[in-house]
Amino acid sequence: MILREKTNPIIKPADIVPSREDFVVTGAFNAAATLAKDGRTYLMLRVTEKPINNDPNQAIVPMFNHETGELEKKIFEKESSGIDFSDPRSFRVDGKLHLTSMAHLRGAWSDDGVHFEIEKSPTVFPGTKYEAYGCEDPRISRLEDKYILTYSAVSENGVCSSIAESKDLKTFDRKGIIFLPNNRNINIFPEKINGHYVAFHRPITSGWCKNSMWIAYSPDLIHWGGYKRFFTPEMSAWCSGKVGAGAPPIKTDKGWLVIYHGVEESGKNEKYSLGAMLLDLKDPENILGNCQKPILSPEEAYETEGFVDDVVFTCGAIKRDNGKIDIYYGATDETLCLAQIEEKELLNNAL
Amino acid sequence: MILREKTNPIIKPADIVPSREDFVVTGAFNAAATLAKDGRTYLMLRVTEKPINNDPNQAIVPMFNHETGELEKKIFEKESSGIDFSDPRSFRVDGKLHLTSMAHLRGAWSDDGVHFEIEKSPTVFPGTKYEAYGCEDPRISRLEDKYILTYSAVSENGVCSSIAESKDLKTFDRKGIIFLPNNRNINIFPEKINGHYVAFHRPITSGWCKNSMWIAYSPDLIHWGGYKRFFTPEMSAWCSGKVGAGAPPIKTDKGWLVIYHGVEESGKNEKYSLGAMLLDLKDPENILGNCQKPILSPEEAYETEGFVDDVVFTCGAIKRDNGKIDIYYGATDETLCLAQIEEKELLNNAL
Repeated sequence: MILREKTNPIIKPADIVPSREDFVVTGAFNAAATLAKDGRTYLMLRVTEKPINNDPNQAIVPMFNHETGELEKKIFEKESSGIDFSDPRSFRVDGKLHLTSMAHLRGAWSDDGVHFEIEKSPTVFPGTKYEAYGCEDPRISRLEDKYILTYSAVSENGVCSSIAESKDLKTFDRKGIIFLPNNRNINIFPEKINGHYVAFHRPITSGWCKNSMWIAYSPDLIHWGGYKRFFTPEMSAWCSGKVGAGAPPIKTDKGWLVIYHGVEESGKNEKYSLGAMLLDLKDPENILGNCQKPILSPEEAYETEGFVDDVVFTCGAIKRDNGKIDIYYGATDETLCLAQIEEKELLNNAL
Repeated sequence: MILREKTNPIIKPADIVPSREDFVVTGAFNAAATLAKDGRTYLMLRVTEKPINNDPNQAIVPMFNHETGELEKKIFEKESSGIDFSDPRSFRVDGKLHLTSMAHLRGAWSDDGVHFEIEKSPTVFPGTKYEAYGCEDPRISRLEDKYILTYSAVSENGVCSSIAESKDLKTFDRKGIIFLPNNRNINIFPEKINGHYVAFHRPITSGWCKNSMWIAYSPDLIHWGGYKRFFTPEMSAWCSGKVGAGAPPIKTDKGWLVIYHGVEESGKNEKYSLGAMLLDLKDPENILGNCQKPILSPEEAYETEGFVDDVVFTCGAIKRDNGKIDIYYGATDETLCLAQIEEKELLNNAL
């Protein structure tokens, strides 16, 4: 049985120091999770902020300007602009999407995996023209002595997938875009398979098909190819809307354990749950088993009501020495939570 | 001055033998163009066909089924299905796109570059699950002793970009998908630059930004990365809607000559024209010059009226020994045409 941490949410927006005095933190969720070399648990959170705004007739859009290197605030008058502001997350100006909050990535450290000390300033802050609207949904895979970070770089160019690397989880060197817009949910396997790095990703082909998990291969982590559609949302209602890889695959004796998210589209709301599947260690395209029902669905109040209702979403899980797997997950695009399950039981669920 | 071949269109649908007796050819356009090793001109046409249909109340969709290896015809009753059939090119069933015609790729050979002998059967016919709806818009680059073909593989998975290679322009070996859906207009440079293969491509990020030319790099033609947005449709009205690379870049003493298409969105019609730009030989991201106005726009009746009105679109051009450049171009998504221009003059236009 999956056990939610009793102090959930373990990280809330109020725990985060904003990146600037004129900003307020609105979300701290969807965290990458990995073991640091010293044994501590490291999380990298998606932190969303928005400009403090005391004028209800104004909408303020934060945006990184790569030409000046400055963060800018664009102000729109709600009544006179003729723009539709009914969605609190975004609106369109002359067809272009504008986001009302901006995300950066922020490190956090823990000795026990439950209580975290959060860094006081951003670890990865928007810094290129592909990140003008923010950096979202980090995943970290440890490959030999390096930590490989992928994240969604969001701008008027769409949602690109970027890669960066670090030796110490403190500074990250950007290595460019690895998957073209629009794409999300990059999960790199923690070791090479048959001589190649392997990743899951999820291209978005608006209107052609439902968002599916694809696989890709690379000789060097920078250049990717060998693309194949891997898993498509057809299996059952809870993941009939879309699917995407969640935590980077975990190696077990039985195979690669993949925790993924599935979306049920019912009525006006999308409901995000987590599932698990098991893949052949030598051929990750070979699915050995898949869960019959979600391993975690929104049930607690902090999962069903928030910035976006009915969302549990993982970007990282850690296999502990005691046979348990800690799944760190974002709830309602607002807070970070933890759930624990025995590896054996999760494997049974995934078969 | 650009000179249209007086016998334009040089190839028409009626010149093509359909791939099956129950199909009729509706288009022969958007051809790759290259010089064969024996000096002949080789074209690879996008040939569209549709099932012969004598029942006006039926819509028939041709589709390759990769599980059976068979081409199937799906029949829809227009009156009872509740489906919107107002667009003759496609319609949606439960949200999924269905195309009323299917494209394959067909070779054609010429001694004089004007009169072509067209092969009697397809050269590349849909054969994978990514090609169920067809293979479109081929481009061929000669790289050392190989011909490298790229084309759009269209299926319910979206528009993927596939690569294949050939030594003789007769058989082509598929090498997989190199750019994720949705993406079109792949143009591979005919030689490595700074140790890498280089390509233009055009991801489609519906709703985020206008379709732009991007650049990519590869060590081996199979794995690609180093993605950057290269050129965006902002310059002038004729290419304000979208831009995409046309013919694979031509090496000249002054730089890489790139013939591209631009789309003007005016009223309900899109108007496709051709432009030219010049790039630094050693750094193709450095634009040395760009045309002030299109080098070719729809003017002749065979360019302004057809399956899709107001379209000239190139997938290939050949630099001749006499200092002229032959631009092969599709007109109205229906026929293939030829226009010739002095290299010197085209370079002047591109500066």
